[in-house]
Amino acid sequence: MRSLILVTAAAMLIGAAPAKKPQTPTDVVAAAPASAWRTIDPDDLLVMDLQGGGRIVIQLAPLFAQVHVANIKALARTGYWTGATVYRVQDNYVAQWGLNESEKPWPSGVNPKPPAEYTRPLKGLSVTPLGSPDPYAPAAGFATGWPMAYSPKAGWATGAHCYGTVGVGRGLEDTGTGGELYAIIGHAPRHMDRNLAVVGRVIEGIERLSSLPRGTEALGFYKEKAQYVPIATIRLASEIPAADRPTFEYLDTGSASFAEYLRIRSHRHDDFYRQSADGVDLCNVQVPVRRKVAGERG
Amino acid sequence: MRSLILVTAAAMLIGAAPAKKPQTPTDVVAAAPASAWRTIDPDDLLVMDLQGGGRIVIQLAPLFAQVHVANIKALARTGYWTGATVYRVQDNYVAQWGLNESEKPWPSGVNPKPPAEYTRPLKGLSVTPLGSPDPYAPAAGFATGWPMAYSPKAGWATGAHCYGTVGVGRGLEDTGTGGELYAIIGHAPRHMDRNLAVVGRVIEGIERLSSLPRGTEALGFYKEKAQYVPIATIRLASEIPAADRPTFEYLDTGSASFAEYLRIRSHRHDDFYRQSADGVDLCNVQVPVRRKVAGERG
Repeated sequence: MRSLILVTAAAMLIGAAPAKKPQTPTDVVAAAPASAWRTIDPDDLLVMDLQGGGRIVIQLAPLFAQVHVANIKALARTGYWTGATVYRVQDNYVAQWGLNESEKPWPSGVNPKPPAEYTRPLKGLSVTPLGSPDPYAPAAGFATGWPMAYSPKAGWATGAHCYGTVGVGRGLEDTGTGGELYAIIGHAPRHMDRNLAVVGRVIEGIERLSSLPRGTEALGFYKEKAQYVPIATIRLASEIPAADRPTFEYLDTGSASFAEYLRIRSHRHDDFYRQSADGVDLCNVQVPVRRKVAGERG
Repeated sequence: MRSLILVTAAAMLIGAAPAKKPQTPTDVVAAAPASAWRTIDPDDLLVMDLQGGGRIVIQLAPLFAQVHVANIKALARTGYWTGATVYRVQDNYVAQWGLNESEKPWPSGVNPKPPAEYTRPLKGLSVTPLGSPDPYAPAAGFATGWPMAYSPKAGWATGAHCYGTVGVGRGLEDTGTGGELYAIIGHAPRHMDRNLAVVGRVIEGIERLSSLPRGTEALGFYKEKAQYVPIATIRLASEIPAADRPTFEYLDTGSASFAEYLRIRSHRHDDFYRQSADGVDLCNVQVPVRRKVAGERG
């Protein structure tokens, strides 16, 4: 009997549908009509294949950091990242990759000194408000499929540093180029919002980064180069022949389905969650993203 | 030059001290006087050694779930967990361990049906308020070294599900016993607050859980029993001879040092973080915990 109970408990923990009536977030996503989904442009997908096997797919966010994202696309297209590795994995924080100590010159098409694209104008964005207070900004919500913090009064918006968010490593006086990237693999370090350029999010394979051994040096750098995790290729999906190309779609954050998904996440109440918080954290409302073609291999 | 910049960038990312003036959270903790630290009772430390090597230390939280914690102590003392494994690792969520499908009877001293210790009275706790809004509760703060959500009006308090928090797996109709435990290894799933019993937090070795391979079955269960991660022993520190016993202390959340640590975390502003959020999430204010005897081995 105990095994049954535990499986049931586990099933309830992430919200698979046990009872008939109370819909779970998963139910709502599954029921969303085709019209609520938006295909991601293959030119906005960065496909990173590890040498040891395993794919990580990143959706780029030109809306937050146009120049940095253009740099990343140029770096991918010119094969800049040949020999790149994951060289830093810090627990509850980031995995970081690129060429690290390389002195390799920037290829043409790369702006070595991009502007500080840490915020963008709120204007022009169609925002779905989170509806819960945010400790890091006057307001939080979603636009074009992205979690954002924003200020209606000051008129700025910024990509939020949630689990899986990809940003650009930078130094003290520069704004970073895009050559060294990090992905968040722990509790959202939202104090990074407005201080670093958000360029995307991992939409597949985050576990290939989050389950890597932690670096034992300060800040999670690997001690020995032998520990570096080699990356075979980093390409745009648009560079991959269409037949082999992974295609993804996200749930339109302006859709009725997303509104219902957000409502249920904010008022989680079912046979397992007896006590609803009646509130939710921005980073606990992960925008649903899925492969468009079922059965396609990663 | 670029290597220098990147190392600098990395150093700044988690707030090592680069410039002279603006103090970082790390600086404040390092400067805290001995009087601001509280030794953790060895009877409140659960020491879990993996068969393959590696120790995970959990501080128990009797203040939140007295009966569940008493159960856990009885299970440790009676050797109940002989043969236990980590059998579930779900990305951005939990690692879970115990005997899983065992039908082993509860040893004496275990209450098989503990009360629903999901909240406790706020009364009796000396609370340091977070000072930022919390999406999951009327208020958030700290008491006796623990992050909490609470309601001043309704008079309840609850341990918060932050990164590293340990809770009791349960079924749909029961409250769990303590035999199956989980640790949070991703973004804080705070909707679990007030719905499950919080019994502690991992204070050392969380990376031994968070870097485990993710289970590929539904909910992160490992598919094959061969993938289960065997646990050699789970003991209370008080059962370990004093000479070999690890000793920890936490920063008193009522101390001036903690107040300053919280203030800096809420207003992160230095040469790297140019834009302060002027707010912070409860789970981004990790209560400092350290080994009391430097050089002691884990």
